[in-house]
Amino acid sequence: MELVIGTKRWSTWSLRPWLVLKHVGAPFTEVEIMLRQDDGRTEAEILPHSPSGMVPALKDGDLTVWDSLAICEYLAEKFPEARLWPADPALRALTRAAASEMHSGFQSLRGECPMALEAEPKVVTLSEATQKNIRRIVALWRELLARSGGPFLGGEWSIADAFYTPVATRFRTYGVHPSDYGDDGSCGAYMNRLLATPEFKAWESAARA
Amino acid sequence: MELVIGTKRWSTWSLRPWLVLKHVGAPFTEVEIMLRQDDGRTEAEILPHSPSGMVPALKDGDLTVWDSLAICEYLAEKFPEARLWPADPALRALTRAAASEMHSGFQSLRGECPMALEAEPKVVTLSEATQKNIRRIVALWRELLARSGGPFLGGEWSIADAFYTPVATRFRTYGVHPSDYGDDGSCGAYMNRLLATPEFKAWESAARA
Repeated sequence: MELVIGTKRWSTWSLRPWLVLKHVGAPFTEVEIMLRQDDGRTEAEILPHSPSGMVPALKDGDLTVWDSLAICEYLAEKFPEARLWPADPALRALTRAAASEMHSGFQSLRGECPMALEAEPKVVTLSEATQKNIRRIVALWRELLARSGGPFLGGEWSIADAFYTPVATRFRTYGVHPSDYGDDGSCGAYMNRLLATPEFKAWESAARA
Repeated sequence: MELVIGTKRWSTWSLRPWLVLKHVGAPFTEVEIMLRQDDGRTEAEILPHSPSGMVPALKDGDLTVWDSLAICEYLAEKFPEARLWPADPALRALTRAAASEMHSGFQSLRGECPMALEAEPKVVTLSEATQKNIRRIVALWRELLARSGGPFLGGEWSIADAFYTPVATRFRTYGVHPSDYGDDGSCGAYMNRLLATPEFKAWESAARA
């Protein structure tokens, strides 16, 4: 398998399926494409790999899966022993809802607090819309952690946790404390747990190299 | 089961899982909430049903699944005999990528051409970003229709077709002809097919009532 990704410092969309693939443990090669190049060069470099003109894309033999969530679902089916979704149907539905809400939503947070793994942490003034996004994320994390019992959203680490790992980096980089947004302590601990997985640490080291 | 939806004329997010539930044929009740009310009234009416403050939400016993794509995945698991995704693993991965790309993307088209089932068709001038969205959708449809052989994206009707039905209404309402955006004829026929399913016709009648 080959995973085509964008610049590791910035590409939240790439980080998610990369974490899932590393968690699976199957061998794969990486193609890293520099994002934010001028004159459409980035898109021109991506298009031979991905019909959407966006990263990530997973190639497995003749098949190219070009969307980050669909890549994760594909891996969940291909590697059932990796238990990439919780075994319990209700928890599976809820963690899927959490991942899908991240996939389609939180536009304000995404625009205002882009992932920047090379940046020093700083405190910024956040818009009301971004603060609302953060309150929602904290409420979602609290609810799922309480329901599953943790340590991750669905109990054991799952695709949903891959989807919220970029959020954890944003909170760290932009000085967001979950305790200011309704956390009972479980979310701060969860955020640190996401940033401490060996898979994320390996991505971070490569991003900062 | 109970499906909480938004105003049928406008709510693309609600239409998708509603079509899937109708396709399944299982009985369910609907709660329709009026969107676009002032002073946060819409969100206040949604929150008792859906923790995200957004529609749709599916309630099944004690479980509330609050995201449209996750609802569809839940139904695909609960009703395997309805074959809501293609049986072939590669086609399943591709139709999932198509649905997920719609779930996260095409922001320009969504903002510029909102679903408006009550509106008379009209021709509007579209931004370059929206035209690019349309070219991408046409290319995606062409590729999947050619690969599966049609008549729908993955062969038989699937969740991916539910996800693109709102797009078909937008093309109709705003005078978008797929032939102006790279269609070989297959996409125009597909668009008409989406708008002719009994499930969509039923939604449309209710939306215009």
